[in-house]
Amino acid sequence: MAPPRAVVVVTGSELVRGDRRDLNGPFLARDLTRLGLEPDRVVVVGDQPEELAAALEDGLRADLCVVSGGLGPTHDDRTVELLAAAAGRSLAVDEDLAAEIEAFSRGVAERLKRPFGDFLPGIRKQASLPEGGVSLGLAGTAPAILLEHGDGRVAIALPGPPAELRRLWPNAIAHPAFAEILRRADAPARRSLRFFGPTESAVARVLDEHGGDGDGIEATVCARDLEIHVDLLVRRPGSEAAAAALAEALVEAFGDDLFATDDERPVEEIVLDLCRDRGLTLATAESCTGGLIGARLTDIAGSSDVFLGGVIAYSNDVKEQQLGVPGELLRELGAVSAEVGAAMAAGARKELGADVAIADTGVAGPGGGTPEKPVGLVFVAVESPFGGSTERFQLPGDREAVRARACALALHLIRRHLVAFDDSGS
Amino acid sequence: MAPPRAVVVVTGSELVRGDRRDLNGPFLARDLTRLGLEPDRVVVVGDQPEELAAALEDGLRADLCVVSGGLGPTHDDRTVELLAAAAGRSLAVDEDLAAEIEAFSRGVAERLKRPFGDFLPGIRKQASLPEGGVSLGLAGTAPAILLEHGDGRVAIALPGPPAELRRLWPNAIAHPAFAEILRRADAPARRSLRFFGPTESAVARVLDEHGGDGDGIEATVCARDLEIHVDLLVRRPGSEAAAAALAEALVEAFGDDLFATDDERPVEEIVLDLCRDRGLTLATAESCTGGLIGARLTDIAGSSDVFLGGVIAYSNDVKEQQLGVPGELLRELGAVSAEVGAAMAAGARKELGADVAIADTGVAGPGGGTPEKPVGLVFVAVESPFGGSTERFQLPGDREAVRARACALALHLIRRHLVAFDDSGS
Repeated sequence: MAPPRAVVVVTGSELVRGDRRDLNGPFLARDLTRLGLEPDRVVVVGDQPEELAAALEDGLRADLCVVSGGLGPTHDDRTVELLAAAAGRSLAVDEDLAAEIEAFSRGVAERLKRPFGDFLPGIRKQASLPEGGVSLGLAGTAPAILLEHGDGRVAIALPGPPAELRRLWPNAIAHPAFAEILRRADAPARRSLRFFGPTESAVARVLDEHGGDGDGIEATVCARDLEIHVDLLVRRPGSEAAAAALAEALVEAFGDDLFATDDERPVEEIVLDLCRDRGLTLATAESCTGGLIGARLTDIAGSSDVFLGGVIAYSNDVKEQQLGVPGELLRELGAVSAEVGAAMAAGARKELGADVAIADTGVAGPGGGTPEKPVGLVFVAVESPFGGSTERFQLPGDREAVRARACALALHLIRRHLVAFDDSGS
Repeated sequence: MAPPRAVVVVTGSELVRGDRRDLNGPFLARDLTRLGLEPDRVVVVGDQPEELAAALEDGLRADLCVVSGGLGPTHDDRTVELLAAAAGRSLAVDEDLAAEIEAFSRGVAERLKRPFGDFLPGIRKQASLPEGGVSLGLAGTAPAILLEHGDGRVAIALPGPPAELRRLWPNAIAHPAFAEILRRADAPARRSLRFFGPTESAVARVLDEHGGDGDGIEATVCARDLEIHVDLLVRRPGSEAAAAALAEALVEAFGDDLFATDDERPVEEIVLDLCRDRGLTLATAESCTGGLIGARLTDIAGSSDVFLGGVIAYSNDVKEQQLGVPGELLRELGAVSAEVGAAMAAGARKELGADVAIADTGVAGPGGGTPEKPVGLVFVAVESPFGGSTERFQLPGDREAVRARACALALHLIRRHLVAFDDSGS
């Protein structure tokens, strides 16, 4: 029997117009891949009926079709109605579900101090199910819905708000019809290698030289804020050894730049774990990244036992007064210099009482560049009980790219600094 | 003649697996919408040949098919080859293009201090064009390509790295074949209203009561980090007055909560402009958002003339030492309290020498909650020469949602504070 196929359909006019970032497609894609059901495609359509209907008809041909959005109370929420039509089912109000949604709505109305009447028109609409469909529970006023529509095929509709979708998604996975599809899926073995240093081309060349893609292995190489992510998927039983040999060839060529193997932790989480393992606290002093490093570190739950805080030192006065950067350094060398970067890191250590501090200073652009200090010039510096280190980079790209890359460089600088100390001390 | 139809195809296995966030689909969707060519759909497919081929064949039926990714030097970059096949064209190396890519690659090799040999295998591959296709220029080693494939239909392939794609996209728009499609598109009039305060349901009800969707108007309502975005698109000539009446009804119902009309600036940009207009400087004191507010503010080019910097005060020691929050407040009331929030804002004003300061403190979760201070409890505070204000919220959602919403609440608090002062002072 062929392995089951999955398709993700995401609906929302604000998404197809690019007005809003879609979080659900990537979440579902990642989780389906984890479960061994890598989707064939993720389709984003607006809420115009024709396009959504076409996407749903197409999606229902797959063994599993997961739909996000279009379940709300408003006129442009058409997923359930069009899903029923695509599956050839009629639509009817489920009275138990209506009662459940009504109770939920009363609670929301009370909490938000809004008139309950605001919710009334939506309740019967949101309690409508395609014939044979079941509710998977509520996380807002919209239920998640599962529909078996023949030959073991399953369609799942989930509410669009990402927090609601993520709350109800486990209920979908746990349903027997979904579990049956999963049973037929054979999750491919996967090897991941993460490098920081080599170019994408150089990595691709080594892959090619050692057999590369094909022969039952799917290899992808992807550059991401100066990291190179290599994934080797074993698509045919028996190709595990070839995948292992490919991975070994890459490690031989770029081992010094390898920072993670089969480890999906982002670098900020690796940095926090390295600090935690060593009993070290961490602080930041950010200029050109303006808070991005802190935001990435604190995005990780539990970061507060390592990360004390930081200073966003955008103006020179803040660099002087909050971080103790000498005024003469700023006047003589300018804020974008190796010396100021190092002084910012040293200042953050001292002023915030942290063991390790990271700093950056640079020209993110588009304005502010000079012939001596062009847009993209960035210094990152680390200071710790083991010493300090400063690096200069000339980064390509626009403001967003320069800032994201400066952030990655800073995080990898801490990582390498902490790992190097282990090596040298052993 | 029917208005032209557009489709966006984004390729990359790391995208269809959700390992990486797609920036190109939303960018292209937004820019096509701006040009009056709202895409029917945005399809993300992996680099497995069958799925990409199917998406391209399907995409080529539209008047305009814009493809992102799969143009690189590696074996899994198959866009050009499959595009040629879908259009029934042969593939041949363009020698002028090969020379151009070679010159570019030599420059990159030199700058990165990498052997030029790393680039050689990719050059002839990347210089291959479908018969009749033209290069739109280079931003990396991959050219953007435009192919007219019959009946005025156009396919455009752009490199996947977002900075390269954005650099070459204007060349695509400027091409006569693209211009001809644009000429046939009739950009719909669009009215945008942005509210901060009402619920999505309440806004939808007012829309419905006043005719809502249909009658030549497409209305979308979308909630985004506590903001409600309403867009009214005039789909049929003559419906402009109905759209104006709908907008007026919304303003009447929720005018106090309206913060932008036909203004696509995000709230952080509005805040920066409000400060700039008043000659005020701005500082942040972030606890639960950990740098997100600073990151959003400094994402805006030119923010440095208003934003001085901030303190990421994650630990209590940093709150005390960098922001002067009294230790007894922290001990008696705890870090997550209105008083500490206000003291953080006052401290940021004083210590960073800013006119206006914003602060937040809260429990982002998933850990750290107590019955008295549950996950989602957030205080935001603003201090300025005109006074101060503190607000308490119990936010739903996971860590990411709580942090994003706390950030939005803080930015809107500054906005309302500055606007209210104008009103009261006039």
